[in-house]
Amino acid sequence: MLSKAQIKFIQSLQRNKFRSEYQQYIAEGAKIVPELIQAGAKIVQLYALPEWITQNSLLLEQHHLVAETINTNELAKISALAAPNQVLAVIAIPQYETNIAPEGLSIALDAIRDPGNLGTLVRTADWFGVKRVYCSTDCVDLYNPKTVQSTMGSIARVEVVYTNLEVLFVSHPRVPVFAADMQGKSLYETKMPDNGILLIGSESHGVSPVLLSLSQPITIPRFGDAESLNAAIAASIVLAWWRGNP
Amino acid sequence: MLSKAQIKFIQSLQRNKFRSEYQQYIAEGAKIVPELIQAGAKIVQLYALPEWITQNSLLLEQHHLVAETINTNELAKISALAAPNQVLAVIAIPQYETNIAPEGLSIALDAIRDPGNLGTLVRTADWFGVKRVYCSTDCVDLYNPKTVQSTMGSIARVEVVYTNLEVLFVSHPRVPVFAADMQGKSLYETKMPDNGILLIGSESHGVSPVLLSLSQPITIPRFGDAESLNAAIAASIVLAWWRGNP
Repeated sequence: MLSKAQIKFIQSLQRNKFRSEYQQYIAEGAKIVPELIQAGAKIVQLYALPEWITQNSLLLEQHHLVAETINTNELAKISALAAPNQVLAVIAIPQYETNIAPEGLSIALDAIRDPGNLGTLVRTADWFGVKRVYCSTDCVDLYNPKTVQSTMGSIARVEVVYTNLEVLFVSHPRVPVFAADMQGKSLYETKMPDNGILLIGSESHGVSPVLLSLSQPITIPRFGDAESLNAAIAASIVLAWWRGNP
Repeated sequence: MLSKAQIKFIQSLQRNKFRSEYQQYIAEGAKIVPELIQAGAKIVQLYALPEWITQNSLLLEQHHLVAETINTNELAKISALAAPNQVLAVIAIPQYETNIAPEGLSIALDAIRDPGNLGTLVRTADWFGVKRVYCSTDCVDLYNPKTVQSTMGSIARVEVVYTNLEVLFVSHPRVPVFAADMQGKSLYETKMPDNGILLIGSESHGVSPVLLSLSQPITIPRFGDAESLNAAIAASIVLAWWRGNP
């Protein structure tokens, strides 16, 4: 049975302030939790319904994990979901070096504010084999429940680092930065850099001028009338094009 | 001043049942409403704060529109947004033929349930010059407020038709259908068809078997470990690749 203190602690992790303080976040659901376990996420605590524990006994054993049995009422209390789903994990936020040199293809995100967009960006990065995503410090928090759910497990495979992008770009002058912008060289005339950063700006303001001045702008040609593309869509299109034109 | 009946009517349009009955929907905000007016949406009624009307007097005149002046309290009552934004439009749902032959490049969506995904798909279709999107009848309603907002005005430029996709494909046997799937020919080995349909399945179940049997499966090569791609992301990648390889 869960104590009041446990319930209060888990609920507190729905807020950025407490996630920062404890360096822990929550992930929920019968689909994402096993994925996170398999991807090597550092599980601090698992709370699950008896049937989930039975079904996942092999997985738990392989990863030397023990889940605390709870009932549906308790799950409802600690869940951030409208429809709580069998299992909730408390996970340690991984600690990465913030100014580490980019290797291979990386993504940098400037002021992405939408949790779903950030989650989808991380998931797409994972699909295209991008190992590291740099976020400006004013990006939405990766570990908020909505973003965690939309990464579909990729949150444990991609290194997401919050850092000052200007400092990052200036301290690694040999790594080219390509900014997805409304103006610039056509994407279709570019090829994938062996080592480089794809910079994606916020939907409302695009890439900020200071970062744009440190980048080579590229643009996704438009064939119709939409005013712009969603940030995650733009990033995906560039990554897919580059991977197909190495 | 708004009557109780007006307020009740506008609020009712937040529900699918009443949108179907009246064949009208609502769009809100200082960014999307002018876009919809310019794109030729059939405005039934406009409700706006005095400052919006002043700022948009030329636009209103050009389109022979008169907005009803309301105050912020009234706007809050009729708005579906947490932060109501200056103007709300009641718009007639356009009527399209449901089994019309596909021309050029079209998209078909099989059981897309997420409102934001559908909106983003329509917006991306508009960017890449796709004129028509066919939705299976179990797709989420295009005219729900969340989807309307996420189309960013493209809702008035792209023909979105709800229809039986199986009947559509069978009645136009000369139009090739390409299904985005986990298996199939690599996207990178395909070129844009002059005339064809890109079929996108639901996130949870993919393309349904009966539709898949009427299609040529294509797949977006994976370079990392993510299990799948978001439906709107997958569609965008294919469209961008095809437009770059005509």
